[in-house]
Amino acid sequence: MKIQQQINSGAYISDGFINRWQRLIKDTVIPYQYNVLNDRAEGAEKSHVIANFMNAANALRGEDIGDGFYGMVFQDSDAAKWLEAAAFSLVSYPDQELEKTVDEVIDLIADAQDEDGYLNTYFTIKDRDKRWQNLMEGHELYCSGHMMEAACAYYEATGKDKLLKVMERNAEHIYDIFITQKHEGYPGHPEVELALMKMYRLTGNRHCFELAEHFINTRGVDPKFFEKEAKKRDWTVWGNDATNHHYAQNFAPIKQQNDAVGHSVRAVYLYTGAADLASENGDVELLKACRRLWESITQRRMYITGGIGSTLIGEAFSVDYDLPNDTAYNETCASIGLMFFASRMLENEVNGEYADVMERAFYNTVLAGVQLDGKKFFYCNPLEIIPGISGIAATHWHTKPQRPGWYSCACCPPNAARLISSFGKYAYGENADTAYCHLYAAGEVSFANGLELTCETEYPYGFTVNYVIKSGAKRLAVRIPAWSREYSIDRNGKKLSVLPKKGYVYVDVTAGDKLTLTLDSDPHYVYASTKVPELTGCTAVWRGPLVYCFEGSDNGDILPVSLKRGGRLVVSDTPDDDLDGAYKITAEAVRAVDDSLLYSDTPLAEEPCEAVAIPYYTWGNRGENQMRVWMSEIR
Amino acid sequence: MKIQQQINSGAYISDGFINRWQRLIKDTVIPYQYNVLNDRAEGAEKSHVIANFMNAANALRGEDIGDGFYGMVFQDSDAAKWLEAAAFSLVSYPDQELEKTVDEVIDLIADAQDEDGYLNTYFTIKDRDKRWQNLMEGHELYCSGHMMEAACAYYEATGKDKLLKVMERNAEHIYDIFITQKHEGYPGHPEVELALMKMYRLTGNRHCFELAEHFINTRGVDPKFFEKEAKKRDWTVWGNDATNHHYAQNFAPIKQQNDAVGHSVRAVYLYTGAADLASENGDVELLKACRRLWESITQRRMYITGGIGSTLIGEAFSVDYDLPNDTAYNETCASIGLMFFASRMLENEVNGEYADVMERAFYNTVLAGVQLDGKKFFYCNPLEIIPGISGIAATHWHTKPQRPGWYSCACCPPNAARLISSFGKYAYGENADTAYCHLYAAGEVSFANGLELTCETEYPYGFTVNYVIKSGAKRLAVRIPAWSREYSIDRNGKKLSVLPKKGYVYVDVTAGDKLTLTLDSDPHYVYASTKVPELTGCTAVWRGPLVYCFEGSDNGDILPVSLKRGGRLVVSDTPDDDLDGAYKITAEAVRAVDDSLLYSDTPLAEEPCEAVAIPYYTWGNRGENQMRVWMSEIR
Repeated sequence: MKIQQQINSGAYISDGFINRWQRLIKDTVIPYQYNVLNDRAEGAEKSHVIANFMNAANALRGEDIGDGFYGMVFQDSDAAKWLEAAAFSLVSYPDQELEKTVDEVIDLIADAQDEDGYLNTYFTIKDRDKRWQNLMEGHELYCSGHMMEAACAYYEATGKDKLLKVMERNAEHIYDIFITQKHEGYPGHPEVELALMKMYRLTGNRHCFELAEHFINTRGVDPKFFEKEAKKRDWTVWGNDATNHHYAQNFAPIKQQNDAVGHSVRAVYLYTGAADLASENGDVELLKACRRLWESITQRRMYITGGIGSTLIGEAFSVDYDLPNDTAYNETCASIGLMFFASRMLENEVNGEYADVMERAFYNTVLAGVQLDGKKFFYCNPLEIIPGISGIAATHWHTKPQRPGWYSCACCPPNAARLISSFGKYAYGENADTAYCHLYAAGEVSFANGLELTCETEYPYGFTVNYVIKSGAKRLAVRIPAWSREYSIDRNGKKLSVLPKKGYVYVDVTAGDKLTLTLDSDPHYVYASTKVPELTGCTAVWRGPLVYCFEGSDNGDILPVSLKRGGRLVVSDTPDDDLDGAYKITAEAVRAVDDSLLYSDTPLAEEPCEAVAIPYYTWGNRGENQMRVWMSEIR
Repeated sequence: MKIQQQINSGAYISDGFINRWQRLIKDTVIPYQYNVLNDRAEGAEKSHVIANFMNAANALRGEDIGDGFYGMVFQDSDAAKWLEAAAFSLVSYPDQELEKTVDEVIDLIADAQDEDGYLNTYFTIKDRDKRWQNLMEGHELYCSGHMMEAACAYYEATGKDKLLKVMERNAEHIYDIFITQKHEGYPGHPEVELALMKMYRLTGNRHCFELAEHFINTRGVDPKFFEKEAKKRDWTVWGNDATNHHYAQNFAPIKQQNDAVGHSVRAVYLYTGAADLASENGDVELLKACRRLWESITQRRMYITGGIGSTLIGEAFSVDYDLPNDTAYNETCASIGLMFFASRMLENEVNGEYADVMERAFYNTVLAGVQLDGKKFFYCNPLEIIPGISGIAATHWHTKPQRPGWYSCACCPPNAARLISSFGKYAYGENADTAYCHLYAAGEVSFANGLELTCETEYPYGFTVNYVIKSGAKRLAVRIPAWSREYSIDRNGKKLSVLPKKGYVYVDVTAGDKLTLTLDSDPHYVYASTKVPELTGCTAVWRGPLVYCFEGSDNGDILPVSLKRGGRLVVSDTPDDDLDGAYKITAEAVRAVDDSLLYSDTPLAEEPCEAVAIPYYTWGNRGENQMRVWMSEIR
């Protein structure tokens, strides 16, 4: 039996780790980004997003367009992601003032919609005649997709449907172009597919479903579509290579694809839409393709941090096992997209491996994307930083040792904001007789199937999770992560002997029950397959969902440090205030004494030492210094 | 007291390892390349070099230019390097037919020289009005430089001066343009500087010296020269970035430069010319700069194989200690240029470190550039090859698992040919009272200072070197390589107790004396500074000048293999026929048994094994397979 994975507005994260992050998004990121959109944020590059909508509205009215359009061709999506983050935030943290601001922005957006339902400030301001001529680069469908997601989120959060209506009209316009008028194209940057599925699920509008199905099944049937399209026009946005079919995942129909390739964000957005569609229309071939692509990513092309897209060139997946630490691109958005994909796979099949990856990506790469104060953001998430090389060498300019501010291509910060704000959507799932707990977060949940529960936990630094059933009587499915070597589960103080099925234990619960899950709190060393050339002879440390790393701030020069196989790992007694309450781990290690020769036939002397690790998501918060996840190991 | 490093036509390599390589060049590479130049070589890309010279001559005569010019703007230099290789080869291996062919090519070249001494087929055929307008990209001085080197070599080999006269006229033309007419430019691709120094030393022509001095001292005084130059014209050759002052080493006057940067071949050609000039004009500041640049390369930016220029981006030096194995660019030409630079530094200061680096570059990267059958060539020389990643991943397309044939940009093959053919020039040096033996090669040498000797050795696989003095009485300076942990030196059977000074022992010799040098024949493990992030936890193996590597052909999958610290290294008893007589080395090792999980919290089981290493220069001669120089070490 399938599950509806996303609880709509049913999860309130009221305490603990996730609550802290959501409050950071609410208190710092959302207001800051609103200032960015209005070009009022200090230190941020010019955005012009709000002005673009106002100018587009003027263009439609035939009035003066002022300073016209500014920004990337997909600039509108910044507004959409901000709206979505704000909407999600309003679910757990009602805020009249924020809601009023959102309403105003929605009014602006509505004004910028063309009579026929078209909505895109770039083309509306710059050239209405160029609509739908450059699907490869134009991002019209991408921007629509993000705005549809925002519309759904805001409706779910507030019941207000103005933006939803705008986007339904927009969807009808797209339907007219691609279905009625038979435009042969498909999206350059996938995103609208998953958004259309959300629209369909929320509104029941069959046109949305048909469009999603059309785009997913059409893609790659004619791999040369973008080439043909490019030949028909005399303009380009930024000179993309239409012949690079891997970049755009259009080298073959998705049902025939085996390897995750190309631009990693595009890839996982596409796979998300495909998995979404498969769970709706039951297309077995499509689901099999999704599973192959999932395995391609998670078994051969993913970092231990849940980072994906290892190369800067095309911000793309590389080949199997090519996972360099120091030059990893690992865009924050790609790991967010991987969470989307995992969550949709979980809808199709209850299997802990999806939630395991979702969690690994969230607690490591996604959170690492945001500075602990919420003010700066990583777009790239490498697993090694060496000042002097990182951010400087020609091959390393993208691996910054410190989080930069808001870029002009501001995809990652608002994406992280909407993801963190909607954590509850990934944490829970349900169907008629079962409530699923995929991830652990302190708060209250009301399942649509009638079950209500409270979750108490200090996770990811505490490894006990208490579920108190407030009302209803259902089966509760609780995930046992693969990383947890042992676990126990008690109901009302009595130990249950249930074996997990595909990563979940199933327990019948009724109002008043208290379920206590205890997970493995030990830190462990981790090893990679020898198929990964970069990682031979290396080890890393993880504890629970958190991958750890070693920074210069705690250790001085980390390059001469090697960890001892089987050496004691000690978790600190107290949380670290400089790292927002993170717990450090100390490992037995040795330190080589460098003799300063570049090459020598004498091994360097080594002396015992302790090496201190911090959670990967907290790196780069104490000034520029070295960082390594994978350390050389002595054994 | 300075030494004149290059013996002109005085060294005959008559036996052993170097002789085999020189015969390969003579018997295979030089004839093959002649066919390439004439577009008669199977499997090679079109060259058109000979046709270019004929068509240029026709253009000058006002006759039909046939199929015009084809190839790179620096296509002429292929002819020059071939001529130079042939000339060097003729010294040790007289060949009337080859000499006749060379004379014919020289006649063609002479015909292609313009009345005013200008010589360049690209501009002569395509547009004579565009001469000297694009020093950044045009390679006019670069081509002249290579042809000057060829002219010197051929005169030294045969006493024939036709090409030398052509190039003296060409030098006078350049003098007229840059000195008399005060053209403000300097070479885009340095090369002519070192060539002019050769011309000056051979002919005594002061204009050549003045020009070399002018170009070296002018470079970078106006770092924006190429930008200004580019603004003045409405054409480009291939759109080089004139603002990239590091690429072209013109960000500052060379005397103010501290780090080896930019395109690595350009860099070392420039430094060679500079060191040459400094040894001639005694410019202490210039020599100090050369020393700083030498240290920058050899102490912080050089691979253990003598490879330099670690990044594909700009075929350039990266920052300090950024020495990736798998993506190393390490152009064969760059290591050849490093040998040039080392040889000129040695002229300024007798110090074994220069010869050590020269030898390391030669026996590893330069020789690796040539397939053992002399038919294919590496342009890039990485230290790790993993089929499936190497040559395929977007960041690895340049690191081919197999030597490709002759490219259209055929810089490396003829460069290797001329270098190997002129080994004797690097092996010996002299001044009035001392004869220097920098490198070891079986053969006869006549020093200009009157000493004549015979050298017998099986080096680099034998570690005894016998010098028999045939006539004369001088001081003999014999290099003791830094890699040799111990050594002994006997004169006429009696052990001498002389301590080396800066890497050389000095012994008085007279006709009839026999000197026997015995070097360390043990293989050793090598380690890198911990400052090199790529190499922490790794070890490599060398024996004498040869760096070893591990190939799949001998070991199966090498990724799970780790070497044991201090483990026994055993040199094979017999040479390997498949590897042209190389001796393999067997190392104690362990092999991990991969459990196929990408990440796991359990260390992989390991079992003892033997790992077989082969000399790095022999890799890639037995089909596509894995290769690693640096291996993970257990300790």
